[in-house]
Amino acid sequence: MSLSSSLLENAVDQLATLPGIGRRTAMRLALELLRREVHEVVRFAEAIRALRENVRYCERCCNISDKPVCEICSNPARDSGLICVVEDIRDVIAIENTRQFKGLYHVLGGVISPMDGIGPDDLHTHELMERIAQGGVREVVLALGGTLEGDTTGFYLNRKLNEQAVLVTTIARGISVGAELDQADEITLGRSIADRKPFEHSIKR
Amino acid sequence: MSLSSSLLENAVDQLATLPGIGRRTAMRLALELLRREVHEVVRFAEAIRALRENVRYCERCCNISDKPVCEICSNPARDSGLICVVEDIRDVIAIENTRQFKGLYHVLGGVISPMDGIGPDDLHTHELMERIAQGGVREVVLALGGTLEGDTTGFYLNRKLNEQAVLVTTIARGISVGAELDQADEITLGRSIADRKPFEHSIKR
Repeated sequence: MSLSSSLLENAVDQLATLPGIGRRTAMRLALELLRREVHEVVRFAEAIRALRENVRYCERCCNISDKPVCEICSNPARDSGLICVVEDIRDVIAIENTRQFKGLYHVLGGVISPMDGIGPDDLHTHELMERIAQGGVREVVLALGGTLEGDTTGFYLNRKLNEQAVLVTTIARGISVGAELDQADEITLGRSIADRKPFEHSIKR
Repeated sequence: MSLSSSLLENAVDQLATLPGIGRRTAMRLALELLRREVHEVVRFAEAIRALRENVRYCERCCNISDKPVCEICSNPARDSGLICVVEDIRDVIAIENTRQFKGLYHVLGGVISPMDGIGPDDLHTHELMERIAQGGVREVVLALGGTLEGDTTGFYLNRKLNEQAVLVTTIARGISVGAELDQADEITLGRSIADRKPFEHSIKR
């Protein structure tokens, strides 16, 4: 696709670098932006530029935060002895929405992915080890995605954390609540059988 | 979804204004941009800002162009008596790729859409009428999408163009080449029967 305008070509090239956006969609987005008022598009571009240039992270949990210490970390009602390790801010939002977790978080900023050249040093693993070394943490919950990269990251962190006096747990994997067994994939179903637990309120023998 | 950072919130809000991008996808894009180098994101934002601030249009056909008169309009080998009216630059690229059209274009920059508050005056219709009024154009081909908005725009332009001494034609609608009849929608199939034409090389009676 050769265009009559290098400005358009440049904008389409840049938009097409975003994940899930091909050149055809990028062109549609560029034409949509062209239909807007100049000040609207300037505000759009500035919001993206400001995000990257001025982003700040919580100095304790490494989550994106406007304040030096985020609201979760600075909340005295939360259990500071329990740390949940997640990939990014989306996982924090998802877990917060469950209202089931009263501890603190540690945001890795990604997962180990040799394919993408992302190793442990590219993530906030060092900060996690420092937090544990400072003491006061009794349990670290690994809440990582059920992907190969999530598993790799979990194995790595478990090995590192086992060097310290801290209990390492991981979130349960199994059949989704409300799901049919014959719809589940074999690996998940197999795991949910291997990880079976006593039925609630049943008589313990 | 309330976020711990107004910078992130702002960028997600802006990305979510793009067509086809919801807040979940916008968040994914914002986190992807955060993983990049600062200079890469600045280049990304600048490309979008520059597109809207510095965009220029061909003064004859209204297509996006770096030069005052685009390469198609300034090509003496093309038939200046034949003008193909299209919605936007994507249609120009699509028609150019067919290598079937040797005339010039007129880019409307959109279609009439009362639902979105877009009327004839928001498009480059006035420029089209001026081009015809200058003389030398014998045929205008309306190559608009087969949507309600495309049809409305076609009806409007046909009425306006009929006031001038110019032949108005429209691209053929029918069954796609290589398509099965039972896969086509009823309106298209009905139209292709109503618009039937003599079989090529058949004896004319």
